[in-house]
Amino acid sequence: MTTNPSLQLWLYDTTLRDGTQREGLSVSIEDKLRIAHKLDQLGIPFIEGGWPGANPKDVQFFWELQENPLKQAEVVPFCSTRRPHAIAADEPMLQAILAAGTRWVTIFGKSWDLHVTAGLKTSLEENLAMIGDTIEYLRSQGRRVIYDAEHWFDGYKQNPDYALQTLTAAMTSGAEWLVLCDTNGGTLPHEVTQIVKDVVTEIGNRELLTGNEEKALTQSPITNHQFPITKIGIHTHNDSEMAVANALAAVMAGATMVQGTINGYGERCGNANLCSLIPNLQLKLGYSCIGEHQLNQLTEASRFVSEVVNLAPDEHAPFVGRSAFAHKGGIHVSAVERNPLTYEHIQPELVGNQRRIVISEQSGLSNVLAKARTCGIELDKDHPQARQILQRMKELESQGYQFEAAEASFILLMYEALGRREQFFEVKGFQVHCDLVEVKETTNSLATVKVAVNGKNILEVAEGNGPVAALDAALRKALVNFYPQIADFELTDYKVRILNGHTGTAAKTRALVESGNGQQRWTTVGVSTNILEASYQAVVEGLEYGLLLHFQAEKALKV
Amino acid sequence: MTTNPSLQLWLYDTTLRDGTQREGLSVSIEDKLRIAHKLDQLGIPFIEGGWPGANPKDVQFFWELQENPLKQAEVVPFCSTRRPHAIAADEPMLQAILAAGTRWVTIFGKSWDLHVTAGLKTSLEENLAMIGDTIEYLRSQGRRVIYDAEHWFDGYKQNPDYALQTLTAAMTSGAEWLVLCDTNGGTLPHEVTQIVKDVVTEIGNRELLTGNEEKALTQSPITNHQFPITKIGIHTHNDSEMAVANALAAVMAGATMVQGTINGYGERCGNANLCSLIPNLQLKLGYSCIGEHQLNQLTEASRFVSEVVNLAPDEHAPFVGRSAFAHKGGIHVSAVERNPLTYEHIQPELVGNQRRIVISEQSGLSNVLAKARTCGIELDKDHPQARQILQRMKELESQGYQFEAAEASFILLMYEALGRREQFFEVKGFQVHCDLVEVKETTNSLATVKVAVNGKNILEVAEGNGPVAALDAALRKALVNFYPQIADFELTDYKVRILNGHTGTAAKTRALVESGNGQQRWTTVGVSTNILEASYQAVVEGLEYGLLLHFQAEKALKV
Repeated sequence: MTTNPSLQLWLYDTTLRDGTQREGLSVSIEDKLRIAHKLDQLGIPFIEGGWPGANPKDVQFFWELQENPLKQAEVVPFCSTRRPHAIAADEPMLQAILAAGTRWVTIFGKSWDLHVTAGLKTSLEENLAMIGDTIEYLRSQGRRVIYDAEHWFDGYKQNPDYALQTLTAAMTSGAEWLVLCDTNGGTLPHEVTQIVKDVVTEIGNRELLTGNEEKALTQSPITNHQFPITKIGIHTHNDSEMAVANALAAVMAGATMVQGTINGYGERCGNANLCSLIPNLQLKLGYSCIGEHQLNQLTEASRFVSEVVNLAPDEHAPFVGRSAFAHKGGIHVSAVERNPLTYEHIQPELVGNQRRIVISEQSGLSNVLAKARTCGIELDKDHPQARQILQRMKELESQGYQFEAAEASFILLMYEALGRREQFFEVKGFQVHCDLVEVKETTNSLATVKVAVNGKNILEVAEGNGPVAALDAALRKALVNFYPQIADFELTDYKVRILNGHTGTAAKTRALVESGNGQQRWTTVGVSTNILEASYQAVVEGLEYGLLLHFQAEKALKV
Repeated sequence: MTTNPSLQLWLYDTTLRDGTQREGLSVSIEDKLRIAHKLDQLGIPFIEGGWPGANPKDVQFFWELQENPLKQAEVVPFCSTRRPHAIAADEPMLQAILAAGTRWVTIFGKSWDLHVTAGLKTSLEENLAMIGDTIEYLRSQGRRVIYDAEHWFDGYKQNPDYALQTLTAAMTSGAEWLVLCDTNGGTLPHEVTQIVKDVVTEIGNRELLTGNEEKALTQSPITNHQFPITKIGIHTHNDSEMAVANALAAVMAGATMVQGTINGYGERCGNANLCSLIPNLQLKLGYSCIGEHQLNQLTEASRFVSEVVNLAPDEHAPFVGRSAFAHKGGIHVSAVERNPLTYEHIQPELVGNQRRIVISEQSGLSNVLAKARTCGIELDKDHPQARQILQRMKELESQGYQFEAAEASFILLMYEALGRREQFFEVKGFQVHCDLVEVKETTNSLATVKVAVNGKNILEVAEGNGPVAALDAALRKALVNFYPQIADFELTDYKVRILNGHTGTAAKTRALVESGNGQQRWTTVGVSTNILEASYQAVVEGLEYGLLLHFQAEKALKV
């Protein structure tokens, strides 16, 4: 679907404010600046940077941005309305957001009568005055104002008339956007649709009543629904797994600002995930949010943010996850290669992601061939070794090996079947010795390995703070004189899973080892009833595959 | 909201079939059986167990269930329609699902003309015959049939007339449920609403046309929408982050079967998450799915399944995640303590979850007290040891220990702080020796342990087919003469997780060991950079806790 520029939406990112409320996420000022610049590149027009009145780190963030401003985006500070019976101009919190030096500010206020009387312990009238005064004061200081109506949906369900009075207070005092917040995340899409439609009608009517005829209603070209010129926004949370669906429902009912966070980070179950919202709105509903050349940076932006905040990316995330366009079953693979439309809801390239063929227990010959192709090996399905590779793979998988995550081991297996596996070294055996005496702190591991290179046996020994670390160290010591590039290899990840846990400690163990050489990363697998042997197998194949990559690159250079 | 029994929905779990398509998830037959029994307890009426025609492991799963059947649930095998121009009775795949010996079977067929002509490479008429023949044959063998209409929504959008013909073929040949599948996960809720309404109207009309007046239409008491007696189901995928929203939309448009998986496991971005669907349907919309006493097992069931498949639980999952009802300091906390409604969309206890106050020391203490109470230890918050327990627990958790799953270790810690931990034996040290020489098959592990009982040192040695098995055997040999009941203890589960994976093999390891004595089971935890030491700690505490249970029971008998 091509986008229609008349269906313009305004995205508002709150990763740097609401997103940082996620349990386990913490960011430095430097992290926040890097993310802000990335969001700017991505074409997000509004970036909420923090609450400078509540958080000294956020004060500095806005100062730094004044030194080194964003190219396009409006960066916005966030703050509550003035306190009950205080004077807006005297509120230090409001002075702090003025000092942020931005064109726009966001003010949140109470919509739900219960929160006014039980939370703020003030009168319903005073709350309306708090909203009105605060916005008027900020307008008098030259700021444009976005008003976040906290607990909007719960408040409206309890007392619609009062809730609408709070919006009117914000609107008549000069807020340009009224953002309806599902703060507790409990609202369902059919309720959002109905309530946003109600607001659109009511606010339009109130603009007529207050004499703002020229501001009154306009008509949406897609929903045929009337909505007011004072614009409506939506801010949703994911407590019912509805954040993205609720935001879409609100847009289709007339909202034109959408608030969310990258990767859906946020308090409790998170905020609306912009990485899902943007492609749904733009590719499926034809709204215009960001440029096409920006949309195809979405996957990279998602991973960039997860790197900066140091959280593992969600591999199964819609649109941007590593598995979002991964195909496992045999039938799927042959069909998707003939016509991607058959098993893919969008072209992965549109969001900067890519199709992946996964090798697994269920895979058929076509998976193996497709995988071989992505590894640069052209194999025909009638090639005598093709079935043999599949056979061997299934045999190993029934023993507990798993090649989905261990592509490097699969490539070595293919080379072996094709008679092309080079023997850089031969494993002769190992011994590991662990000692814990009297006090825990003194555990030591000692590993001895015996390997052969070019027919020459090498015996080496090393220590480590665990048996696998000791084995790894001994292997490297044994091989580095023959293959100096091994000094650049490193073990970057190590995972262990016990198969058939119910047989207790005698169960089989699968170890996955991720290795790297500075430029590339690869994963290998080992399986055994002995956890050390499983780990050892994976470490050995990790070294072998690294050498394979090195010599392939060297050959390619010579040609 | 109280549930209305007239709004009955039928849940259909496909964790064991579609769920296992998730990349990185693999399960043994034993794992599948444990999950099936858990789903049965949870009150799920239909449990899809696998595709016995395509996967030999699934054949055995159904055999095992015949030996050891579920209490309530119908277990269902899954299969495609017969191949083009084949005879249903001659299809080995259909024989395989008959051999599964179930009352119900699920058959999937093609709804989308493109998949028939480009995928199956057969005619549109032949596809209708494939659907009809297959279902008729299974009906003739006494099976009740659920029909999954693959790619329903994409197919209907392209060629609604043909798509409806496929449903009619299934209905007239005897399928009792027609399940509309959003196989590629690309459909949005407003489309689902419209298309399900169309189907309900059309299928009702077709039943009238075919003379099934008595099967024609009935009326939904909540949506006032007419729907047919041949029942409609919904099966959604999460590629647009809409799986749960789409399933809700379908139910509100007249679907009465909802398919999904625990934790939303499934291919690519997953299936509809039953852990979110069930509470949304039951607590918010008043549908009846499972019993109240089952609903409050939902959090436990979610964590049980993630443990069995050995995937880290999603802490931010709606309803069942550890952070789903977590409140970070300040305003939220005091408000939520005064009135939970202000910041919680449902009562966490309804789904078996709990409120957590993050960072607050005071609330940490109340957690400890609550935990102590569930372990039968009454502790007052002014008890001098209460804060000490909290302190020690936080210290250990920051090192990587985790007591949620390891209650037995937590109880030992509390007894220790209260000066009530009995020293049945004292660990002096261990040595482990592993050997792999020339050929893989000959790995052997030898463990030596030194323990003291009543001041007497015992040195023992044992072999095993892995180092942890050898350690376990040596410990038992050393202790069994003093504590003969140890002969009845068994290690029932053993799991290992590497913490901070990115530091490679030098990373910390957490081992969880589940032990049993025939009547009870308990779990203990150990953490170390040395995988063997972490395992050893957990094995040792497992034996200690078993002895504690034994002597407590003995004392209770004497009193």
